[in-house]
Amino acid sequence: MFEAEVRVELKKGVADPEGKNTKKALDLLGFDKVTEVKTSKFFTITLDASSEAEAKAMMDDMCVKLLANPVIHIPLINIKEV
Amino acid sequence: MFEAEVRVELKKGVADPEGKNTKKALDLLGFDKVTEVKTSKFFTITLDASSEAEAKAMMDDMCVKLLANPVIHIPLINIKEV
Repeated sequence: MFEAEVRVELKKGVADPEGKNTKKALDLLGFDKVTEVKTSKFFTITLDASSEAEAKAMMDDMCVKLLANPVIHIPLINIKEV
Repeated sequence: MFEAEVRVELKKGVADPEGKNTKKALDLLGFDKVTEVKTSKFFTITLDASSEAEAKAMMDDMCVKLLANPVIHIPLINIKEV
């Protein structure tokens, strides 16, 4: 069994309103040393693959087909055996 | 300057409808080797703190006050100097 962690980050230059609003809220709460907030989506996927290479290939395919939008997202995949 | 990565995970037993629906969509796309999908929220926060200890204290405070709900979330904080 493999566990894949996928962080779906926004590409540079793509608007991140959730990050901007979190930054604003932190400012209002008095956290004035925060200079930037960026948000991303995180998936933890358990896979019944036979090898790490197979797991990686499946994860790449999932990112293309469902998890990430190639126009605005960069998926970062990290796989470990469990 | 420090960069803090905060992963706001759901506690065990808390419903994760987004994860469940992602699992369903992956099943429909033919990814039948996926056994579980969990989702979490990920923040990347840049801080103008003077030490790693100060950055850690600020992040703990932010998690309590804004980023995580202690009833359903577990925040995982990771800090590095940049």
